[in-house]
Parts: sequence; C-alpha cells; structure tokens
Amino acid sequence: MNAATPAEILAEMRTMALAARAASRQLLASATDARNQALLAAADILHERREALSEANALDMQRARENDLDSALLDRLELTPARIDDMLDGLRQVAALPDPVGAIRDMRTRPSGIRVGKMRVPLGVVGIIYESRPNVTADAASLCLKSGNAAILRGGSEALHSNTVIAAAMADGLAVAGLDGAAVQLIQTRDRAAVGALLGLEGLVDVVIPRGGRSLIERISKEARVPVIKHLDGVCHVYIDDGADPDMAVAIAVNAKTHRYGTCNTMETLLIHQKEAAQLLPSLAKAYLDAGVELRGCARTVAIVPGASLATQEDWGMEYLGPILSVCVVDDIDSAMAHIARYGSGHTEAIVTSDYLRSQRFLREVDSASVMVNASTRFADGFEYGLGAEIGISTDKLHARGPVGLEGLTSEKYVVLGEGQIRS
Amino acid sequence: MNAATPAEILAEMRTMALAARAASRQLLASATDARNQALLAAADILHERREALSEANALDMQRARENDLDSALLDRLELTPARIDDMLDGLRQVAALPDPVGAIRDMRTRPSGIRVGKMRVPLGVVGIIYESRPNVTADAASLCLKSGNAAILRGGSEALHSNTVIAAAMADGLAVAGLDGAAVQLIQTRDRAAVGALLGLEGLVDVVIPRGGRSLIERISKEARVPVIKHLDGVCHVYIDDGADPDMAVAIAVNAKTHRYGTCNTMETLLIHQKEAAQLLPSLAKAYLDAGVELRGCARTVAIVPGASLATQEDWGMEYLGPILSVCVVDDIDSAMAHIARYGSGHTEAIVTSDYLRSQRFLREVDSASVMVNASTRFADGFEYGLGAEIGISTDKLHARGPVGLEGLTSEKYVVLGEGQIRS
Repeated sequence: MNAATPAEILAEMRTMALAARAASRQLLASATDARNQALLAAADILHERREALSEANALDMQRARENDLDSALLDRLELTPARIDDMLDGLRQVAALPDPVGAIRDMRTRPSGIRVGKMRVPLGVVGIIYESRPNVTADAASLCLKSGNAAILRGGSEALHSNTVIAAAMADGLAVAGLDGAAVQLIQTRDRAAVGALLGLEGLVDVVIPRGGRSLIERISKEARVPVIKHLDGVCHVYIDDGADPDMAVAIAVNAKTHRYGTCNTMETLLIHQKEAAQLLPSLAKAYLDAGVELRGCARTVAIVPGASLATQEDWGMEYLGPILSVCVVDDIDSAMAHIARYGSGHTEAIVTSDYLRSQRFLREVDSASVMVNASTRFADGFEYGLGAEIGISTDKLHARGPVGLEGLTSEKYVVLGEGQIRS
Repeated sequence: MNAATPAEILAEMRTMALAARAASRQLLASATDARNQALLAAADILHERREALSEANALDMQRARENDLDSALLDRLELTPARIDDMLDGLRQVAALPDPVGAIRDMRTRPSGIRVGKMRVPLGVVGIIYESRPNVTADAASLCLKSGNAAILRGGSEALHSNTVIAAAMADGLAVAGLDGAAVQLIQTRDRAAVGALLGLEGLVDVVIPRGGRSLIERISKEARVPVIKHLDGVCHVYIDDGADPDMAVAIAVNAKTHRYGTCNTMETLLIHQKEAAQLLPSLAKAYLDAGVELRGCARTVAIVPGASLATQEDWGMEYLGPILSVCVVDDIDSAMAHIARYGSGHTEAIVTSDYLRSQRFLREVDSASVMVNASTRFADGFEYGLGAEIGISTDKLHARGPVGLEGLTSEKYVVLGEGQIRS
C-alpha cells in the first residue's frame, strides 16, 4: 500500500468516494430508526471487540513510542477502558438525538398556487481529516451517519490500528441495520497523497472537515478543491464594561482564562473599561498571578499592574493556548469593539455589563461566531450549547458558524408542492 | 488605470476591501430604516440622473458596436427607459422587503443557566462579478445593502460607463441616509487582474458571487481563495410517473421545456415511466415538434416517436439551453431517480404523479436544490418562491441551495445570554 503510485492512490480514493456516494443515496432513503439501529449495533459490536481494540491500540502506542512521539500525542492516542466506555456512550447518545433530516420550514402558498418551503437534507459525502485521537473515528462517523451523510475518515497514521477496529465496528453496525457499510469508510493507506486526492474530488466529496492544529487546517484549506468547514484561531476576548458587577467581572474573566488553557474558547485578551481598570485590575492580576498566568498589558495596564510586562503589537493577535494573557485598557465599548474587530479571530467574545443598551450593541455589532453577555467564553462548545455533540467549531462565516453539530452537517433544499401549475 | 502594475492593482483592491470592511462594520450597527432610506434615496437620485445614465449607456453601446460585440450582448447592455424604470422599481421593492438581519431563533435555556440561540447576521463584504447587464449593479448592490453587507461590484467592462452612474447613485443614496458610501463600490479598472486580486483577499472579502456563463464561473471557482457561491449547470428533469394525470403531465412537460429555452430551470431531459410512454409520448412529441423542439431519445423513445433521433451518452448530461430535449423511458421511479443522480446537476427536478408515497420518496431522495411535485421546473426562481428578489441561484450544497435572496446573503451566529455563569 505504501508503495502505491499517485495514480493508484487517486484511483483508490475515487473508488471510495463513489462507494460513499452510493451509500449516501441509500441513507437519503433510510428511516431514522435504521440509522439509530446502526449506531446502537456499532456500540454493541465495539463493546464485544474491546479486547481487540485494546490490542490494536497497544500496537499503535508501541509504534508511537518507537517513533519517539511526544507524551502529549501518546496521551491523545491512548484508549483507556474509561475512554472506550466514553466512546460507546457517545455512540448511544448520538442515536438518542433527534433526527435533523426531513424537517420542513416556512411552507407558504405563492400567488401561482404552488406551495414552497425548505427541507433539511444531508450534505452527502463528508470527509473528516483528524489527528491522533482514535475516539474521533466513532464521534465523527456517528454524527455523519445520524445526519444521513456518508463519511470518509482519515485519522492520524499513528492511530491506524485502533481506527481500523473502530471503523470496522461502525461498518458492521450498518450491516446489522441493513445499511451499506460504505457509509463509514476509513482511509487505510498511510500515504499523505491520499489526503490530497480526497481534497480534489469535486462533485464526489461534498465537504471536508479538518480537525487539528492550525498548520493542518491551513494546508488543507489551501489545497482543497472541495468545500471545507474549518476552524482557525480562537483569539477570544472578554470586555469588562463600565459599571459591570465587579464580582461577576472577576469571576468570568478568571474562568475564561484559567478554566483550561489549551482550548480554543479560552480568553486570550482581556479588555477593560478605563473607569474599571484601577479598581478591578489589581484583584484580577492577583488571581491570574496566583494561577501562574503571565500578564502582558498595554501601557495603562502596566501602570496599574507592576507585574505585567508591556505587550507588543503581536500579542494582541496571539492565540497563546497557554498561561499567558494580554490585557488592554480601553476608553469605551466602541474602542473595545474596534479592538476585537482588528485583532479578534471571529471565534467567541463576551461582554460583562449591567447596561442593557450596551449589551444589545455588543450582541449585534460584534461579528464573531459566538457572542456572549455575562458568561464565560468557555461555554462556546457543542455540549454546552445543547447540540448533543459537535464535529468541530467553525470560524467560517458561510454555512455554519461556531460549534457544528448535526444541523451543520445538513443543508436545506427547496421543496415545491403543486397541483399541476405551469409558468405563464 | 489600464497601465497599472499587478502590485498597484492588488493595492487598489486591498484599499477598496478595507474601506468595504469598515463600511460593513457600520452597517452591522445600522438601523433598518437607515438602510431602507439609502435605497429609496438611491432610486430618487438615479431618477434625477436618468439623462446622464442614458448618455453613459449610449457611450457603452457605441463602444460595444465599435468592438463588434454580438447582438445578444448589445441587447443585454442596453438600458431602455423601461429598463431604467424597472431598475428604480427594483430598488424600491428591495427597500420594502422585511429586514432579514437580527432575527433570533431557538433561544433555549441550558442546564448551566445560560440561554443560547442563533442570530441572523450579514456575511460582511460581498464581491459580485457579473457580465454585461448594467441593471445587475443596482439589483446586487440593493440586496447586499438591505441585508447589511458591503458590496464590491465588478461588472462587464463594456458596461463601465453605465455602471459608474448607477454605483455613484447608490453611494450618494448611502450618504443621504448618513451611511458610508464605501458600502457600495464599483471596480473601475478594466484590467482583469482586479478580479484575481479580489478573489485572493482572504479575510477581507467574505464571499464572491459570480453571475454569468459557465466559463466565468469555473474560472472564478478555480482561482478563488475566498468562498464562492456559485451556479453551474441546470440539467433539470421532469419525471412522469406511472398513473400521472395525462393532461397535467403534458402541460407540465411542455411548459418546463418550451416556456423559455435559455433559462437554467428549463427542463433538459424528460423521463417517462414505461407504462405511460406509449400513450403520452406521441402527443408530447407533437407538442414539442410543433414548438420546434428537436427530440433525442433512448431506444424505447425512438421506437414510439419516429421523429426523435437516438440520444448519445453525452446528451443525458447536456444543458442545451435551446430547443432540444432528451427523452428517456424508465422502468420505474427508482430508475428515474438513479438517472437523475447520475446525470443531473442538482438544480431542479420535478415529478408528475398521483401517488402519495412516490411523491414523498421523490421529495426526499432527489438531491437537488429544488425538488417539485406536480409543478413546472420553471418555478425555480427567487420571485416565484417569494424571496422578493434573487442575487443568483446556487448549485452548491453548503450554505445556500437554489434561488439566493436576502437570507442567502446572511449567516447565523450564536448568541449567549448569561447572568454571570462560569464553566465548572
């Protein structure tokens, strides 16, 4: 397999995509019950194959250690019994979610007599490109299947043995429900050319969703001829407004930064109204320094917080993904929103305020996928939003913004009901 | 201007896009009334400048004739008094449409106490690339403005004098309403490199919508680094089902083909159930031949209709855009849907049927932007669907499918209303 020529790999990917398209047509016709049965059967089958899965994972882990992969990657790669349990629970939870497909909205009668509405439909064939976590195989496949899409999965090559066992259980679950196993296919070759081939299959692959670090996503976006739903930076802001409740402001600003450092919805820059800075920044600084967070501030911040270093121009656009926070004192809500428009990444921004009109302005005028009033940015998450599960978080502006759940894996087509109408 | 270097053109396009972004931020904050006032003022101003517009158009026409452009193009380029009236009416009609922006749906309280919903918001900066019709300048700009987007317009260079007058009236209308005139900008250079530069402005231009022939759209899709909403082929089908009302079947099948030949929602292939072929094809063939439509059929069709020639494999995927129709006799609805899946372009398909279950199967399983029961495919149109106006028809599967109106020029962001909630 590893010695395949580019033409062979392209042919293999085309064959997979054609099989996925055929399976996606069957899914269009499938009952909700059949798709749910497939998910539940896959969970049962995977439970029966726990031992084989653990052995496959041990093989992946051994190989990863031999290749000197770092400890963070080894951690993500490992499937502990608890993680396998979570994966099985996840499959069953997705089965229990409402079916997004088939809903019709806004059906209206037109002067011609036709009735026109929009029906929610699957996208078709979804490619998912991800890194070392094997549980993504089950998560992504189950969300695609539930929403009536066929999935082509490309996990990290270091997880290939684990992913193969999981994908086979999904395909076998489909067979139990009388559905085409090609609705869940795993790319088996480790050759990177397979990704390039997948990204070029216009008309066969309806969307590719990359999950991983920025370099992966940029590379895929650059190369793709098919549509991509992508997640770039999370340079999230909290703005503490003039007159905000001080306890609430401190609680949210501390939680948004320190709850977890490595997540995309973590605050990276704190903006604070000039009238609140002198009172709030010292206690905030103490909380951050106690938590081990390094502060980089504007000149006004540094004047109030001696422990802060002066931020450079680059700091304002940084996604630190670690215990560093940039802090900027702003004149008013307009300055805060201008700062966000200039340096933000359109991911998640929050205002802490007691003022009604400013809360409404912030909600309306801040152009981010998630905009919050008086809540921690850490809530920007599919589970917290009630999507049941998420296949990723989009920073695109078209199609789906923010956490992408089942609805983001669907689109809407027009349906027209007539009684013989013709255009005159 | 025509002698500008590529670097100068890129700099000019960046400057335009930055001005558009600033204007789009102002539009985010703008009241519905202000945007409507701008549209009405633009209509008034353009009315006052009718003479200047007619003179500019005469200049474009003269130059086009000197360049030996064909008569179809000259017809599209010409702004008759009636066409100017239509353009002014169009501006006023768009002002009268409901504002799509700001609507919040599905606001729900989560277990954490936060309330989460989705707010409809403008896309931001929209590029429109179109051909010779100058009225598109007003249509496209008004739809963008109404939906809170800044527009960068690139019309056909043969219409530059006309477009300049129209775009100036739009910008002056914006000024009357106290809005930034940079919300509507026309690319003034005739240099084609301007389009390439626009298509590369990732992060500054949110979407480009090309309107025109297939070659324009393919070139733009291939080149674009920014998202594109596009319209490719309209290979539309009508399927006459077993037991369909014969009069209705004939009326729809004739209307879908002969109402207009050059439109994308015109039927290009007729599918007919084998049990209906012998009875219906002769009268259908007579109607088509009377209208001057050439028939290309499968072997079974040719056996029934001696006037039809045998269709080649290429015919099934052809968008004739003229008085030619391919006809295929199929075994049943499954064969019909398989034919559509294989040869269709996902634009518009209709079934003529009396059978409830088959009508529902067709609606659900046919993966096209518009799917119809007992209605002519010619209804696939923004005005017929009640969108008020359309900026184009999308054959994409993400974001917007089918006729794209104001809603297609918007997206949804998450809004979160808290009372101090933090993640625990």
